[in-house]
Amino acid sequence: MKIAVIGIGLIGGSIALKLRKKHFADYVFGVDFNEKHLEDAKSLGIIDEISSLENAVKNSELIIIAIPVDATREVLPSVLNLVDNHQTVMDVGSTKSGIVYAVKNHPKRNRFVPFHPMWGTEDSGPKSATAESFGGKAAVICNQNDSAEDALELAKEVAKNLDLHLLYMSAEDHDIHTAYISHISHITSYALANTVLEKEREEETIFQLASSGFSSTVRLAKSHPEMWVPIFKQNKENILDVLNEHISQLRKFKSALEKENYELLEELITNANRIRGILK
Amino acid sequence: MKIAVIGIGLIGGSIALKLRKKHFADYVFGVDFNEKHLEDAKSLGIIDEISSLENAVKNSELIIIAIPVDATREVLPSVLNLVDNHQTVMDVGSTKSGIVYAVKNHPKRNRFVPFHPMWGTEDSGPKSATAESFGGKAAVICNQNDSAEDALELAKEVAKNLDLHLLYMSAEDHDIHTAYISHISHITSYALANTVLEKEREEETIFQLASSGFSSTVRLAKSHPEMWVPIFKQNKENILDVLNEHISQLRKFKSALEKENYELLEELITNANRIRGILK
Repeated sequence: MKIAVIGIGLIGGSIALKLRKKHFADYVFGVDFNEKHLEDAKSLGIIDEISSLENAVKNSELIIIAIPVDATREVLPSVLNLVDNHQTVMDVGSTKSGIVYAVKNHPKRNRFVPFHPMWGTEDSGPKSATAESFGGKAAVICNQNDSAEDALELAKEVAKNLDLHLLYMSAEDHDIHTAYISHISHITSYALANTVLEKEREEETIFQLASSGFSSTVRLAKSHPEMWVPIFKQNKENILDVLNEHISQLRKFKSALEKENYELLEELITNANRIRGILK
Repeated sequence: MKIAVIGIGLIGGSIALKLRKKHFADYVFGVDFNEKHLEDAKSLGIIDEISSLENAVKNSELIIIAIPVDATREVLPSVLNLVDNHQTVMDVGSTKSGIVYAVKNHPKRNRFVPFHPMWGTEDSGPKSATAESFGGKAAVICNQNDSAEDALELAKEVAKNLDLHLLYMSAEDHDIHTAYISHISHITSYALANTVLEKEREEETIFQLASSGFSSTVRLAKSHPEMWVPIFKQNKENILDVLNEHISQLRKFKSALEKENYELLEELITNANRIRGILK
């Protein structure tokens, strides 16, 4: 199958590599506004052809949009303008309500399948892309009844070939859940990095001492603003809701420490330990 | 060398296994108040002999105390009471000022080397112990001038055999740095787990959706209160200081979102990205 990947970074590149490895894609058009990324993607064998958006879309059965969520909102209507009833468009965005809203009344809305694979790393660009990606993680398809049956079937095939198991929910529910499960983690990680950078002026000491625990908690703070500012912007209300709760949970720890209430501290920790049973 | 390990859990057990593998230890006495842990440690080949504290200390050249930091404060003076000038005692605690203070005027103070290997996992007990531990991480020796030269030399040998590189600092500095680099990570992780457990009542959804990012940020929330309440207690002032800063950093994200000040949001994230250069 010929596919177009719009945005040939970590996610778009990893999808291309994996679909190629599984012999699901046999020709990949790469579209990006970053010339360097396009050249890298070509020389790394991620794409077969550097292409204009129009040419890529016109000649592909499947079009995957893997760019920041604000840009997806802009580009998606133009892509749908170009497709016919035998082509399918998927995105990979971390927020869904705004994207779905942007094409709500588009005559080709049913060629679009809102898709979110719950995988990523703190790296970006085609050089970070890998065929060893996605495996065992979940992917969400939103508002499935608004997509044509054959488009949905193709999206399921894509998920299968990426070794993702599928969940179905509304775009609104998706954005609530991802605020809890993904977006807040990034904010706490960024804020933790800023805390340590603010308080710990001796950067050499951070580097020397950083335990595996710290590295793990702060890993997401390496993620780039180009991707995350638009996510926070589009999911503002849900994220603020979770962030308020998080600050209030931190205040409980603060209060327990200040009051030397170590029984409360133990309760708070024991409650948090329940995550062990949920995350295995 | 005959060694005594007091507290045969994740850390004590991993030290025993690794020192044994490196042929540094050829006989290991295991001391623990948890009978099950002792039996597990024996049958897993971590220790050679289940022993009383007194017998283990009397018959070992090196005594390693690997129990929670409050218990270390209690036990350390009794251990020093039992040793002569050819024996060395090390602890592995995540806080140091309180432990050092507890034996400040002990006549055998110079047989003790305050030691902190910056490695651990969210698991506990001898079944989690592994010889594949510590490698490449840092260890801190505190207040080195208060230890006898030969005791210090032996501690260096231990660090070398555990593949740890050594840093030297005062107990006070150690406790400030670990508040930044380790203790606050645990609090944010616990608070994040509690946030998600509070807001996300659908536990099945957490399980299904949890991205690798979330799992990584919340990993430390699996750590047990038996170990961490005493650490928070003994390092209360430093942790409160960092926790206040962390809450104020989170409030900046909150305010940027509330005011839709996306330039500030980008600045906050770009600043956090600096951690990439420091942690490689």
